[in-house]
Amino acid sequence: MTSQQKSFGSDNHSGAHLEVIQAIADANGGDSSPYGADLLTRRVTDELRSAFRSSEVLFVFNGTAANVLGISLLADSYEAVICAEFSHLNVDECGATERILGNKLLTVATPDGKLTPELIAPRLTGRGDPHRAQAKIVQIAQVTEVGTCYSLEEIRRLSDFCHSESLYLHADGARLANAAAYLGCELGDLAQGVDVLSFGGTKNGAVGAEAVIVMRDELADRAQFLRKQQMQLGSKMRFIAAQFAALLEDKLWLRGALQANAMASRLAAGIAHVPGIEVKYPVQSNAVFAELRPEHIAALQQEWTFYVWDEARNVVRWMTAFDTTDDDVDSFVAAIRAAS
Amino acid sequence: MTSQQKSFGSDNHSGAHLEVIQAIADANGGDSSPYGADLLTRRVTDELRSAFRSSEVLFVFNGTAANVLGISLLADSYEAVICAEFSHLNVDECGATERILGNKLLTVATPDGKLTPELIAPRLTGRGDPHRAQAKIVQIAQVTEVGTCYSLEEIRRLSDFCHSESLYLHADGARLANAAAYLGCELGDLAQGVDVLSFGGTKNGAVGAEAVIVMRDELADRAQFLRKQQMQLGSKMRFIAAQFAALLEDKLWLRGALQANAMASRLAAGIAHVPGIEVKYPVQSNAVFAELRPEHIAALQQEWTFYVWDEARNVVRWMTAFDTTDDDVDSFVAAIRAAS
Amino acid sequence: MTSQQKSFGSDNHSGAHLEVIQAIADANGGDSSPYGADLLTRRVTDELRSAFRSSEVLFVFNGTAANVLGISLLADSYEAVICAEFSHLNVDECGATERILGNKLLTVATPDGKLTPELIAPRLTGRGDPHRAQAKIVQIAQVTEVGTCYSLEEIRRLSDFCHSESLYLHADGARLANAAAYLGCELGDLAQGVDVLSFGGTKNGAVGAEAVIVMRDELADRAQFLRKQQMQLGSKMRFIAAQFAALLEDKLWLRGALQANAMASRLAAGIAHVPGIEVKYPVQSNAVFAELRPEHIAALQQEWTFYVWDEARNVVRWMTAFDTTDDDVDSFVAAIRAAS
Amino acid sequence: MTSQQKSFGSDNHSGAHLEVIQAIADANGGDSSPYGADLLTRRVTDELRSAFRSSEVLFVFNGTAANVLGISLLADSYEAVICAEFSHLNVDECGATERILGNKLLTVATPDGKLTPELIAPRLTGRGDPHRAQAKIVQIAQVTEVGTCYSLEEIRRLSDFCHSESLYLHADGARLANAAAYLGCELGDLAQGVDVLSFGGTKNGAVGAEAVIVMRDELADRAQFLRKQQMQLGSKMRFIAAQFAALLEDKLWLRGALQANAMASRLAAGIAHVPGIEVKYPVQSNAVFAELRPEHIAALQQEWTFYVWDEARNVVRWMTAFDTTDDDVDSFVAAIRAAS
Repeated sequence: MTSQQKSFGSDNHSGAHLEVIQAIADANGGDSSPYGADLLTRRVTDELRSAFRSSEVLFVFNGTAANVLGISLLADSYEAVICAEFSHLNVDECGATERILGNKLLTVATPDGKLTPELIAPRLTGRGDPHRAQAKIVQIAQVTEVGTCYSLEEIRRLSDFCHSESLYLHADGARLANAAAYLGCELGDLAQGVDVLSFGGTKNGAVGAEAVIVMRDELADRAQFLRKQQMQLGSKMRFIAAQFAALLEDKLWLRGALQANAMASRLAAGIAHVPGIEVKYPVQSNAVFAELRPEHIAALQQEWTFYVWDEARNVVRWMTAFDTTDDDVDSFVAAIRAAS
Repeated sequence: MTSQQKSFGSDNHSGAHLEVIQAIADANGGDSSPYGADLLTRRVTDELRSAFRSSEVLFVFNGTAANVLGISLLADSYEAVICAEFSHLNVDECGATERILGNKLLTVATPDGKLTPELIAPRLTGRGDPHRAQAKIVQIAQVTEVGTCYSLEEIRRLSDFCHSESLYLHADGARLANAAAYLGCELGDLAQGVDVLSFGGTKNGAVGAEAVIVMRDELADRAQFLRKQQMQLGSKMRFIAAQFAALLEDKLWLRGALQANAMASRLAAGIAHVPGIEVKYPVQSNAVFAELRPEHIAALQQEWTFYVWDEARNVVRWMTAFDTTDDDVDSFVAAIRAAS
Repeated sequence: MTSQQKSFGSDNHSGAHLEVIQAIADANGGDSSPYGADLLTRRVTDELRSAFRSSEVLFVFNGTAANVLGISLLADSYEAVICAEFSHLNVDECGATERILGNKLLTVATPDGKLTPELIAPRLTGRGDPHRAQAKIVQIAQVTEVGTCYSLEEIRRLSDFCHSESLYLHADGARLANAAAYLGCELGDLAQGVDVLSFGGTKNGAVGAEAVIVMRDELADRAQFLRKQQMQLGSKMRFIAAQFAALLEDKLWLRGALQANAMASRLAAGIAHVPGIEVKYPVQSNAVFAELRPEHIAALQQEWTFYVWDEARNVVRWMTAFDTTDDDVDSFVAAIRAAS
Repeated sequence: MTSQQKSFGSDNHSGAHLEVIQAIADANGGDSSPYGADLLTRRVTDELRSAFRSSEVLFVFNGTAANVLGISLLADSYEAVICAEFSHLNVDECGATERILGNKLLTVATPDGKLTPELIAPRLTGRGDPHRAQAKIVQIAQVTEVGTCYSLEEIRRLSDFCHSESLYLHADGARLANAAAYLGCELGDLAQGVDVLSFGGTKNGAVGAEAVIVMRDELADRAQFLRKQQMQLGSKMRFIAAQFAALLEDKLWLRGALQANAMASRLAAGIAHVPGIEVKYPVQSNAVFAELRPEHIAALQQEWTFYVWDEARNVVRWMTAFDTTDDDVDSFVAAIRAAS
C-alpha cells in the first residue's frame, strides 16, 4: 500500500481502536496467570457468555482458527459441512478445515451469499450411506462474503430446518458486529438457534482477537483440549481478553460497526447514479460490491487500494472500517466519479 | 494467582516490556497491508533474517505453532522426530505434532534435558523399513525444559551427526534469548548447523509473538502455505512485527534475558547452602530446579506461585523473568530460608 | 439381492473369474516372503511395470486406497485436487482424501463426466496466494463415473495442459480395463502423460486387488512408506499378486472387459427404440445410464437389481460385468420392454 | 526366502489353510450384494458376534487397519493410547495411528510385553490439563509382541483398573487364536472387559482377513463410516467373510493355533538344554525368543529363515505357524544343535 489515501481494501487494513491499544497497555501491570486463568480473561469471558447466553467462550488468534475450532466441536471426521461456495471457509483458509479436521465441505451456489433450507436440501443425499461423507453442519457467515446479512427470521428458519434434519448450525461471525449493527439487535439475538458461532474482534478494531461462542453445554468439555491441540491457546491470554474488554466497554464494538456500515452506505449512495457502475448486492454491512468497466477499475487502482472480487465479471469489493470517515468516502466517491 | 508477590511460576506470568506495548501503539497509525505485506513486517523480518543469516522468517502466534510449522517444513508424514522425553514438544502441546502433522515422536530419556549423538543413535533403527516411522528430525530445545543450554560446540556436534545421518536438526527456541545471554553469543551463532529453529518473543517480554527461522532456501516456498493452513497467519501482522521490532531495538531481547538469567543465578546462590534443598540441574538460564521436602513445598506455595515439576521426586521449578528484580529474589530467598 | 436374475447393479456384484480363484489356490504352496518380497509379487509387478512402462507398481486393497495413495504421492497437504463433481473420489469415498491426506477437492461440473482444459482453467485461481488451497492435481477417471472414456487424444491434451500449468495428472483406473477395451489400445497407452494412475482388478473379475501405477521415478521412494502408513500393505501379498497374474495371463483382463462392454452395448441397442427411455450418455464401457418414468423404474426394481443414479431426474444406471451373458441382457431387455 | 526349509520367520510366511482357499472358491457362485450386505457376510458376522458376545463386527484388510479403526472408535484426537514400548502399534505400523488419527502413543517399558495397572499408573499424569494429551485407551496385545499371553485374571484386573480410571481397554488380537489355544478358553472369554478388540485371521491361516470386534453398543454407529473413510471397506466382502467362515467351521482357527503353539513348545523343549542358548520369555503361544551367540545366529541364517529381534542383545525370534510340522521343528532343532 503506497497510497496515502484511506484503504477500501479490507477492514483488516485498518489499525486498532485507541481504546483497544490502551486496554492492552492497562492489562500489562504485574503478573497474571497464563492460559486464560487470569482475572481479566475470566471477567471478559463471563461478559461475553452473558451477552450471548452461551455455555462457553474461548479466545483464539484468528478467524480461520475460530472456524476450525468451532467445526471441530460439532462434527466427526466423516461428517461434512454445507457452506456457501464463496464462503471464507471454503475459499480463503487454504483448506484448513480439510487438513486440520478432515471434514469435507459441500458447497452451495448462492445468489447473495446466503444459504436457505431450499438451497441446502439438495445436498442432504446419501445420509446413512457409508460411502458418503455425512452432512452434519450447515455453516453460514453473518455477515456473508458479499456483505449481506441474514435476518433473525432467516436464521430461525435455518435453525429450525437444521435441527429438524439433525444438522448443527454454525455461524462464522468474523463480522458479526456489523450484522448486529445492521439488524439493530443484540449479540445474543444473533446466537439464538446457532450451535457454535464466532465473534470477530480483529476486523472490528482489535489488534488480533476472535472468540468462539459455544451455545451447547455438552460441547464445552472437549473445547479446551481441541483449542490447545489446534495451536490456539495463548499464554498471555490477558492481552487478548483486554481487546474484547475494550470492545465491550460502552459497546465500542457496536459503535465501530455502525460507523463502518454507515460509511459503506454513504459510499453506495454516492455512486448510486454514476453511469456504468452497478452495485451487485444489497449493502447491509461495511462492503459495497460494484461492477465497473475494466479500464475504470485500472484507473482507480492507481490511487486507491481495493480488490477486484471477480475478475471475470469486473466486480470490485470496497470495504469500509470503523475508522473510515465521511471525508474518506467523499474523496473516494469523487475519484470514482472523476474516473468514470 | 492471588499473591501480591512476584510469581516464580513461569516467564509467561509476566506482562510485556513497556517498549513492546509502545511499539504496538506506534504501529497503530493508519492503514497497512495485511498478512505480512506491510512495511514494518518486511523491515523486522529483514532484520531477523540478517541476525540469523536465515533464508526466511515467519511470525506465528505461539510456541506450539512454531514447533509444528517448523517440523512440517522438514518431515513427511511417515517420518519421525527424535526429541527429549520431557520436551515441550512431547509433553506440553497436547499432541499437536501428532494430530496436525501425523509425525511420530521418538522420545529419549536424558540426564539433563540435552540430546547427544550417543543418546540419539539407538533410535536410528529400522531405517528403510516401511513398517517403521523413519527418523528424520532431531529436535532440541535451546534452552531445554530443565533450564540447561547446549554449548555451541554441542550444537555443532549434533548438527554434524544429524547431517551425516541424513537427519535435520530443529531447535525449539522459545527461550533462545536466554541461551544467547548465557552463552554470550549472537543469535546467528545459535542457528549455525540448525535447519529450522524458532525464536520466542512471548516468554521474553512480548505480548505474544514467535518467529520461525528457516535456514534452508529450499524449505521456504512451502512455508507460507503451511503457516496459513496451520491457522497461524495473522491479518494485522504489523502488531506482531512491532513486538519483535521493540525486542530488537538496542537488543532489548538480550537485556531482558540477561536480567532473567541473573535473577535465577541470584536465586540459586541464595539457597545454595540452605539445608534440605538440592539444586538438580546446572543453572544456565532463567530457571532453578530444586528438590525440597514436601512440607517445605506446601508451606512456600501458600504465599508464592511456582510449580512442582516432579511430584514423585519433590522437585520444584522456579522461573524468573525479564521483570524479576533483586528484591523479588531476595524476598523469595528469605521465604525459602524461613520455611526450611 | 434376493433375485435370481443377473444383477445390473454394479460390476462388483459379480464374483471373480475362475482363473483368479485358481491362481489364489496355486499361490498357496509353502512359505513365501511377506509384504511383497515374494517371487510372485516381484514377477507380477515387473509385468505390470513393463505393460505400463512405469517406474513403480504398488498393490493395495481397494479403489479408495488406490486414489488416496496416488494423490499422496503427488500433492502436499495445502494443495488441491481438481476433479469432476460426480467423481468417485468426491462422492463415494466418505471424504477419505480430505481426512487421510487433508487435500481440498475442487469440483467441476461436467456434461459427460469428462474434464477438459476449458473446464479446468476457471479453477486455477489464487495460485501463489497463501489463503487459497493450491491446485496441483487434475484427477480424471478412466472410465468416468457415467461410463464415458477419454480418447487418447483427450488425455494427451489434458496432460499437455496440466504439465504446462505445473499440475499433475492422476487417473482413477478402477475400470481402466474397460477403457482399454473400448479404445482398442494397450494399457501403456492409457498411462502416457499421466503421472500416477490406478489399475483396478476388483471390478474386472478379481476378488479384491488394485494396483497403483507410478509413472515418475522421483515419486517412487515415498510410496512404500505411505502405503504402509495408509494401512494398505498386505502381509501375504502373493495372494493379491496372484489375482493380477491371472488377469494378465492371456489378457484375461481384456477379455473380461470386452465382454462387459459388449453386454452394455447389447443392452443399449436392445432398448434403443423403447418409448419413454432415453439413454443419457454415450455407451463407451460397461454402463448404460437411462432416464425412465418413475413407475417404470419401480416396476423393474421388483425383479431386477440396479441403482437409481439420479433420483431427481429419474436416471438409472445399468452395469454389466465380465460374467454378464447375452441371455442375461436379453432377459433384462425383455423385462424393460414389458414394463414400459 | 531361498531356502526349501520351513520358515521360522513369521506366521505370515505361511500360506493359507486349504479350507480357506476352498471357502473362497465356494463363495464365488453368482452375484452378491457388495460391501458386506451379502448373506455370507451377515451369517459370519452373526457367528462372530455370538462368539464374542459383541455389539458389532467389522471386517478389515489387515492388522494395522484393525488397530487404527478400533482406536478411532474409542478416542478423540487429543486423547492418547498407553501401550507397550515394543508393541506392534508403536513400532511396526509406520506411525499410522499418529498419522491417520492424530493420537499420541504413551509407551511403557515392560519386562515381558505385558502391561499392568502398576505400569500404567505413572502415565496417568496431567489429566484435565489442556496442555497434555489425555490418556484414554490402554492397548494390550493378546498375544504380546514377545509371545506371552495375559491370563483372564490379568485382563480382568486391567479392565477393572481401566474402567475405574475412565480408560478404555483395547486389545490387538492379531494372534488372539493363539492366546485362546494357550489359555484353553473361548473367544468370548478373551473379550470380557475389553471395549474393542481385533480377531486376526491372516496369521492363523487366512489369505488376508481381520475382524474388529466392538463390545459396546454406543460405539457401533460410527464404525461403518470410519471403516470406509479409513479405506477398509471391501467391495466383494464375501471373500473376506468366506475366510472367517472357514476358520470358524469346526473351530479351524483353534486347531491351527493349537498346532502352531505346540510346535513352539516342541521347539523350546528341543533346545532347552543346548549350551549357549537362553530362552528369554515364557513360551505361551507360537513364538520362541532366544539369545544366541552372534556367530551361531549367522550360521543358522545361512539355511534357515528367521529374524533377529534384538541386534544389541543377540536375541532371535522363531515363529511357528498352523502348518509347521513335527518334522520341521525337529530338523530345525537338529540344525540349531549342530551349529551350537
